[in-house]
Amino acid sequence: MHGIIKERLFTPGPTPVFMEAQVRAVTRDLHHRTEDFRQVVRETVDLLRYYFGTKNDVVMFASSGTGAMEGAVANLCSPGDRVLVGTAGKFGERWLALAQAYGVEAVKVESPYGQPVSIEEMKRQLEKSGPFRAVFIQATETSTGVSHDVKALGSLVSKYPETVLVVDAITGLGTTDLRPDEWGLDVVIGGSQKATMMPPGLAFASVSDKAWKTMEKSKSPRFYFDYAKERKNLAKGETAYTPATSLVVSLHGVLSYIKEIGRETLIANAAMLADATRQAAQALRLKPFAASSPANAVTAICAPEGLDSGAIIKELRSRFGAIIANGQGTMKGKIFRLAHLGYFDAVDLFAIVAALEIALNKVGHKVELGSGVRAAQETYLKHVDSAEPHRAGAR
Amino acid sequence: MHGIIKERLFTPGPTPVFMEAQVRAVTRDLHHRTEDFRQVVRETVDLLRYYFGTKNDVVMFASSGTGAMEGAVANLCSPGDRVLVGTAGKFGERWLALAQAYGVEAVKVESPYGQPVSIEEMKRQLEKSGPFRAVFIQATETSTGVSHDVKALGSLVSKYPETVLVVDAITGLGTTDLRPDEWGLDVVIGGSQKATMMPPGLAFASVSDKAWKTMEKSKSPRFYFDYAKERKNLAKGETAYTPATSLVVSLHGVLSYIKEIGRETLIANAAMLADATRQAAQALRLKPFAASSPANAVTAICAPEGLDSGAIIKELRSRFGAIIANGQGTMKGKIFRLAHLGYFDAVDLFAIVAALEIALNKVGHKVELGSGVRAAQETYLKHVDSAEPHRAGAR
Repeated sequence: MHGIIKERLFTPGPTPVFMEAQVRAVTRDLHHRTEDFRQVVRETVDLLRYYFGTKNDVVMFASSGTGAMEGAVANLCSPGDRVLVGTAGKFGERWLALAQAYGVEAVKVESPYGQPVSIEEMKRQLEKSGPFRAVFIQATETSTGVSHDVKALGSLVSKYPETVLVVDAITGLGTTDLRPDEWGLDVVIGGSQKATMMPPGLAFASVSDKAWKTMEKSKSPRFYFDYAKERKNLAKGETAYTPATSLVVSLHGVLSYIKEIGRETLIANAAMLADATRQAAQALRLKPFAASSPANAVTAICAPEGLDSGAIIKELRSRFGAIIANGQGTMKGKIFRLAHLGYFDAVDLFAIVAALEIALNKVGHKVELGSGVRAAQETYLKHVDSAEPHRAGAR
Repeated sequence: MHGIIKERLFTPGPTPVFMEAQVRAVTRDLHHRTEDFRQVVRETVDLLRYYFGTKNDVVMFASSGTGAMEGAVANLCSPGDRVLVGTAGKFGERWLALAQAYGVEAVKVESPYGQPVSIEEMKRQLEKSGPFRAVFIQATETSTGVSHDVKALGSLVSKYPETVLVVDAITGLGTTDLRPDEWGLDVVIGGSQKATMMPPGLAFASVSDKAWKTMEKSKSPRFYFDYAKERKNLAKGETAYTPATSLVVSLHGVLSYIKEIGRETLIANAAMLADATRQAAQALRLKPFAASSPANAVTAICAPEGLDSGAIIKELRSRFGAIIANGQGTMKGKIFRLAHLGYFDAVDLFAIVAALEIALNKVGHKVELGSGVRAAQETYLKHVDSAEPHRAGAR
């Protein structure tokens, strides 16, 4: 007879929610055309600036992250424009699909799944195949667990006054050091169900002056995802169309918490969890899928030889209520993914690794119980006890 | 720099709450003198009968568990009555204090902290020092983590038609096999913040016909904790005084969940967690405080030689946000206690053991990381995979 089984999300979105903000959301029943709500909106936009680490304007939409990605293409590019896309997985491919949808010609720099896009190759293409209206890439490619050196890419793109850099940081924000202003990341895109510890339904984007200027020239059709229109409205605490009020209140609550513990703390937390997960995987004789540049947001791990990753996922789900992600597309069955973005702590990691050890044994990959946990514990200690002695309070 | 730290309760009350019932409680704003609320009350009383495993009437009070304990003394005993008290810790001593408060003469059978009351000695006292109006004991003594053989005691007391058996099962219910009707447990007492996975504020008691008859004769003053008055009211879905409406709604939700997964499942879950905790403690060279008859509700563990248990508790709290209990009274600093009652699952246990290993190392008790977790994992597998193959759904 089985006992209590609690459902636990370890997926790279949705992620575990920060309950205090959820409660705040359900207890404030706001009409969007009121001063009360306008104040929430204005404060939320300011908090988003803090979260992004930017002085740029930030826009926000009631949509999934893809909405803001489409908006970036529609607002920046005109039909027939040429863009450069760095793609290393399913979300890189989304940039290509969006370019195609808007009649934009995409030159692509592609890397095999599990490897980062070559920034060297991006440089060569910028020099050889330009001019480009925009360069599109992921800060972290959620489908494979690799991260990209967007700092280096920003420095390259900055040299082209007519080219803007658009970074899908949907899982990069809050997990990865990103400096939009210093590094020349002209458009940075985020979504609510990631390191912001809340349900899906909101997308946001920071936009540099250079990008705003480019947007003035774009001739692509857009209406709902009109960045300039939204910017104008948000400055007054308004939104062009009906905002998702409860989600905005929730975002306000979460970002207040993130500001309280510090953006850098949140990022260091994800970095610690990702490192500890990689060490645990190694101790369990599992290969990370990211050959290099692993992301802090999510760790993709190869299924053991001859095993379908779905079997591990199913065992974790049915036995422990723990939900982890499979690979997407052709990676399905080959990898599984454990998320570190947002409201996860070290204790969560110890827990899921212990559960994973049992699941692995059950599906035929024999491992020593406790050995992955030990590796995670040791890595936790290395990160946390070597760091500065100030701590975020328990919540 | 530290990262996210989530607060987690591992205390023997309050315990982690079952959130669905909490949400239901905050979303139903009921007036207590309405048919809507009367229906909730009637259903809750039926669910309590299921939870207790009894056909007896169950009464319920807006109070902590101690309120129902006082009620048992006040309703059963008259001044000058003689009672037999088995005491093995702080909560056994509460029976003595209550007897004294009501001018009732208590003969006590005491065991040292960490050991169960001798049922043999209870038998001798029943034979030699009776007649007694009532016998008082704990099903599980929360302060020391020992359990008592109330089945054997029930069989002894049943032979005395003028003596009722009162069992404080505040942490026994939902963690321990208790059969009030078969075993002759005349009054069984519970509290809401225990295996019922909700906040404190409600106490309940099941009462046998034998006990009702005894109550008719009692001359002690009582008003708020008048069992007979409450029984009469509850039969109509009413309460004598203003009920704690939100807590009643929450209890209704929790008990519905417990009925769904099965009372036996909940008990088996606590038994598994307690066994796994003992095995983990042994692997970490820690001595259980209960020399014999360890309770499923809570495991008391001795601090390593020369160490104050408070240091371990403090380290777990500040480092991981995990809250465990210290010893009470003279046991303070000597033991720490980990709870298994209610909404805990195996993954919670792996997590707290991993955290404990780190805390132990930090305060100077060197243990091999992962070794306690391994012992817990192995015990989990022994319990769960050898059992029947039906599972409760993840929640």
